[in-house]
Amino acid sequence: MVIQSKSLVSTSPGPDPVASIAEERANATFDPVDMHAVVEGSPEKAQKILELYQSLERDPILAPGFHDYELSRDENREQTTARINRMTQYVENEPYEDFWRRLNLMTVYDPSLGIRISVNLGLFINCIRGNGTDAQYNYWCVEKEARHMKQLWGCFGMTELGHGSNAAGVETTATFDEKTDEFVVNTPHIGATKWWIGGAAHSATHCVVYARLIIKGKDYGVKTFVVPLRDSRHQLMPGVAIGDIGSKMGREGVDNGWIQFSNVRIPRFFMLQKFCKVDRSGKVDLPPLEQLSYISLLQGRVGMASDSYRICARFITIATRYAVGRRQFKSDQREDEKEETQLINYPLHQRRIMPYLALTYAMGLGTDRLERQHAETVKNLEAAVAKKNEKAIYAALANTKSLFVDSAALKSTLTWLAESCITETRQACGGSGYSAYSGFGKSYADWVVQCTWEGDNNVLGMSAGRALIKNIQTILEKDIRIKGSTAYLSDAKEYLNRRYYLKREEQLTAIETLRALEVLIVRVAAAAAEKQEKLESWDAVSYERVLLSKLHAHHYLLETLFLATRKVQKPELSYVLSKVTKLYLLTNVLEAFARDFVSYAVIKPQLSLQVSSKLVPESCLEVRGQAVPLVDSFQQPDGFLNSAVGVYDGNMYENYFKVVKTHNDPTKTKAPYSLDLEDMLNRGSILSRARFENDTEASKKLSS
Amino acid sequence: MVIQSKSLVSTSPGPDPVASIAEERANATFDPVDMHAVVEGSPEKAQKILELYQSLERDPILAPGFHDYELSRDENREQTTARINRMTQYVENEPYEDFWRRLNLMTVYDPSLGIRISVNLGLFINCIRGNGTDAQYNYWCVEKEARHMKQLWGCFGMTELGHGSNAAGVETTATFDEKTDEFVVNTPHIGATKWWIGGAAHSATHCVVYARLIIKGKDYGVKTFVVPLRDSRHQLMPGVAIGDIGSKMGREGVDNGWIQFSNVRIPRFFMLQKFCKVDRSGKVDLPPLEQLSYISLLQGRVGMASDSYRICARFITIATRYAVGRRQFKSDQREDEKEETQLINYPLHQRRIMPYLALTYAMGLGTDRLERQHAETVKNLEAAVAKKNEKAIYAALANTKSLFVDSAALKSTLTWLAESCITETRQACGGSGYSAYSGFGKSYADWVVQCTWEGDNNVLGMSAGRALIKNIQTILEKDIRIKGSTAYLSDAKEYLNRRYYLKREEQLTAIETLRALEVLIVRVAAAAAEKQEKLESWDAVSYERVLLSKLHAHHYLLETLFLATRKVQKPELSYVLSKVTKLYLLTNVLEAFARDFVSYAVIKPQLSLQVSSKLVPESCLEVRGQAVPLVDSFQQPDGFLNSAVGVYDGNMYENYFKVVKTHNDPTKTKAPYSLDLEDMLNRGSILSRARFENDTEASKKLSS
Repeated sequence: MVIQSKSLVSTSPGPDPVASIAEERANATFDPVDMHAVVEGSPEKAQKILELYQSLERDPILAPGFHDYELSRDENREQTTARINRMTQYVENEPYEDFWRRLNLMTVYDPSLGIRISVNLGLFINCIRGNGTDAQYNYWCVEKEARHMKQLWGCFGMTELGHGSNAAGVETTATFDEKTDEFVVNTPHIGATKWWIGGAAHSATHCVVYARLIIKGKDYGVKTFVVPLRDSRHQLMPGVAIGDIGSKMGREGVDNGWIQFSNVRIPRFFMLQKFCKVDRSGKVDLPPLEQLSYISLLQGRVGMASDSYRICARFITIATRYAVGRRQFKSDQREDEKEETQLINYPLHQRRIMPYLALTYAMGLGTDRLERQHAETVKNLEAAVAKKNEKAIYAALANTKSLFVDSAALKSTLTWLAESCITETRQACGGSGYSAYSGFGKSYADWVVQCTWEGDNNVLGMSAGRALIKNIQTILEKDIRIKGSTAYLSDAKEYLNRRYYLKREEQLTAIETLRALEVLIVRVAAAAAEKQEKLESWDAVSYERVLLSKLHAHHYLLETLFLATRKVQKPELSYVLSKVTKLYLLTNVLEAFARDFVSYAVIKPQLSLQVSSKLVPESCLEVRGQAVPLVDSFQQPDGFLNSAVGVYDGNMYENYFKVVKTHNDPTKTKAPYSLDLEDMLNRGSILSRARFENDTEASKKLSS
Repeated sequence: MVIQSKSLVSTSPGPDPVASIAEERANATFDPVDMHAVVEGSPEKAQKILELYQSLERDPILAPGFHDYELSRDENREQTTARINRMTQYVENEPYEDFWRRLNLMTVYDPSLGIRISVNLGLFINCIRGNGTDAQYNYWCVEKEARHMKQLWGCFGMTELGHGSNAAGVETTATFDEKTDEFVVNTPHIGATKWWIGGAAHSATHCVVYARLIIKGKDYGVKTFVVPLRDSRHQLMPGVAIGDIGSKMGREGVDNGWIQFSNVRIPRFFMLQKFCKVDRSGKVDLPPLEQLSYISLLQGRVGMASDSYRICARFITIATRYAVGRRQFKSDQREDEKEETQLINYPLHQRRIMPYLALTYAMGLGTDRLERQHAETVKNLEAAVAKKNEKAIYAALANTKSLFVDSAALKSTLTWLAESCITETRQACGGSGYSAYSGFGKSYADWVVQCTWEGDNNVLGMSAGRALIKNIQTILEKDIRIKGSTAYLSDAKEYLNRRYYLKREEQLTAIETLRALEVLIVRVAAAAAEKQEKLESWDAVSYERVLLSKLHAHHYLLETLFLATRKVQKPELSYVLSKVTKLYLLTNVLEAFARDFVSYAVIKPQLSLQVSSKLVPESCLEVRGQAVPLVDSFQQPDGFLNSAVGVYDGNMYENYFKVVKTHNDPTKTKAPYSLDLEDMLNRGSILSRARFENDTEASKKLSS
């Protein structure tokens, strides 16, 4: 046996994951930098993202590190605050679009930071912009500098302890006092306590409060009011009670708070009054188009869909590199190999992670499209409103409806899928996935609230599904074609009559699968429409509504992926992308919804079985060959992945061990509680601990 | 408006969840105490559990509390150690069976405690018992008192950084030195570092080390050795390097460690030698039946299946009570009600949580059966071995094989299902589910490692599935009937030929569904067998193997649930149980595996669709009526549930608010980092912060 000293001394050869990953890269058929530009939507965007990564990985305060996984709640809050402080340097100095991109990227590793800033610059300011007059926006956001995270810090007072999803049901009241020309904001009971308010516990100076407008005893429904919470000395305003909501599953860096108002008075002109106006005498003017105010909430949903893409990219990168470097057992398909088999060469392992790799590509392109769709829709709507062009407003509103459906379907479907992706990739890294330093634990705990907030996934799914069913009802009843992102429903009549759309393996192309999805959506929606009409209840078809929302989301992704692949110039890229598309549609679409495809007679059972038993494994194997370059194409650097086992060069064991030793000083061989433990081990006998009161001698004495 | 003071002052009526839950209890058709005895398997066991709950909820150190959700890693370790210390009082004083029951119950709220003790009393001692001679067991466990958590603290040195699932591949060496009659234990390279070893970092004094036995250059494979790690002063032994593995996703109370041995010498008789013996000259005696040593690992798997039941019982209790107390929106099926609709009355919400309620019942009875099966199998085997009765040994070995398959299938399937249950019930509690005080976050993070350790779920699933396929091969090739828990496979030939077993709604009974499951298992296994033979690879059918394992697990549960229901005397109990059984089989079996049932032609597509669109919602509704008494039947007290929103009396809002205020002092209105934050908000202009170096005046000066 030859003892060797490289970075460490070995008395026999150890694992060599670095060689394994190098081999993968040697077999790459395309350049990840090229592919990065494809998956991000454009070379310019890809370039900007890399510049931001570089800026972040260098920044002493903004850069992530393994210590992030060990922070207590207090330390977490402090770190997040320091990062916010640092981010104020950028918000004033770089283009707003770049700043948001920076924030979105940082959200992947520091979601607490992301949401603390988003609540202020996103929800608070968007609420003022969406519901307030220009003067109100200018006053608080520009003049008082809120948009630069300066002077004011805003929070978003919608949710109450008793009302989350049903925002129209909030019970905080804002009662007009004609005598003083003020609104009196009040929390009538515990259920109306503002709850979960991000930034309220310690940061916010102001809150946009969703409260019922009450004038002369009449309830005009929920409106929005700017309510100062803290004075310039950061002391609570009179009548304002605020507390910390305490420990959470994740996002411990956010100071979520509860707020109770006890007859807090604000001037009348603190009500946001772009739409609803109250004059000096308490007369209410409620113009139409109030629905427009809700468009300001869509930015958050679009952002969460994009977040889903980036978090999946992060963890599929880690899990793929791990699967290449890690060897375990010997596969009976590779008995000629000397070493144990790499995880990635097991069919089951491929089946566990490759579908998420394909999904991530679909997510990247799909959410890029959604971001652009959102920007354009908002721009058109704002332009039309500014010009007061009614026809243009209604045209823009139609697009807004598509955006509502698309963003609701994508936000809910993708945040759920991201949750599954983190879970599966963690399990695919075995024990290492459970180490905090691999990154899964914190990210999962931080992530999952995305499925609940800013539109609970089931509620959003139901809303998107309801729109689809209503569309079908219109199409079938009125025999018309519709526009927008659900235009494919227009062929409903034809789709309802054709049996077994897909019968043969050769039919399983992107274009045919898109069509099959459309047929399925039409059939599920038509059946649901019938049930809804028969039972006169939308709640009776809620299950079908959420199903439809998921199917629509996949339709959106598949369509985008397909079209993007067609546009790609370099043949080596489009070849690989076509394989990725195939894997995506086989697993995430045809297999994931196999029961529905079969039951609704869109695919023959025999073909569905073939998908599962033959086509999926074949497709996994095809993508597996380029798995490493495919994840390299996400271009997330080590400092950003922040995972001990997901490093670029594959040197996971040495790196992991180094992280463990750096963060857990081995010279401390005893725990702080060691004395207690040692005392316990070295305790006396039961008899001695019972002072010998129950030994035979005592027994003798006591019985005498 | 009348202002009212009850426990708090309200200026308008707030939510009244207490009334809602009281109403449910008023409509109970059975006594939860009776049902508790059913679901636990016997009145005696149920009684014992309640006595233990009472003892635990009173104990100042062992009782859970909301503070448990806020501990730092160090505090967590310290608390766990204090609880271990307290548990030593019980291990010496109460019957061993009661002590294990106590530990199993505590594992629901303190899994760190559970595993720290289980590694010592379970893995370490079982390993010595299973692999060592009687003398070895007596010496370390009795004489040195390890079984009483005294003098010695053992850890289990199997996993290495480079080898987790493949225990036979570990690379630590134990080389016999004939000169000194010692083994030299060595860690040859970083990959062979013992990793994840629970208790190693700070607690353990001894380790059973899995290492390759090397004698005169020959590798005899992996054997077990007792290696002292720390001396009586708790100082590391020479050549032993140990460190803390650091932060984890959960179970922060466990001091997992890494261990490296640099030529550590132990006497020859420290090798565990019930099976493998090495004599003074280095001659190795390797009798058959070494496989028996692995039975000692089964206790852990059986325990994890039971853990799955109890953790599901805990969270389905919380989510069900929340769904009754929480009202949101107005359902279009309940427009005549004055208040908003209770979550539990929404069809979608029922569909999300009711199936887990039914599953939990199936898990309770199924794991009770598994516990008894395990105890009996081990007893018979030990008796046969003690008597050296070869025939009895082989008979017991056959039962052991069944236990291997059943425990592998149930451990993997149920720990996965429990993970899904915690996730879905958390989401079903909306934002409250994300609060640490509802209990979901910590439990999830602690839980999920159950899917990875002591047999990775996919590896275990593959192993159970492989056994099923081999059984089918035997049956089909040799035309014989088999015994044990897979005896139902014996009808394979018949099952392979009959088409569409289930066609009509009326067929969906427990007994017919059991049969349908058998048909499906046979068909999947037969198809996999064919594929395996054709491709000459077991890895090629790994997906099917895991599927089979899940199906077998559900067969076990459904069979148990069905038989238990038949035995129940009280008609009000059996009526409800039959509804629960129906819901279980419709959702967890027929719907969950619908694709397979349809593709393998066991159920008609049309009937499968009907299950989903009609029967499942109907069945949910039937169980919903008794949902609260059904969860009350798990009899987990408030102190044990340890959830701010899952309290027995339903007073969730006031309780939650009280917990938040108690643990987050509202008098501290400013954060510790407030000065930084205030400085940030009140910072000067960009120009001033840039020392006016880029204003026009400077520009003038510099350009002159």
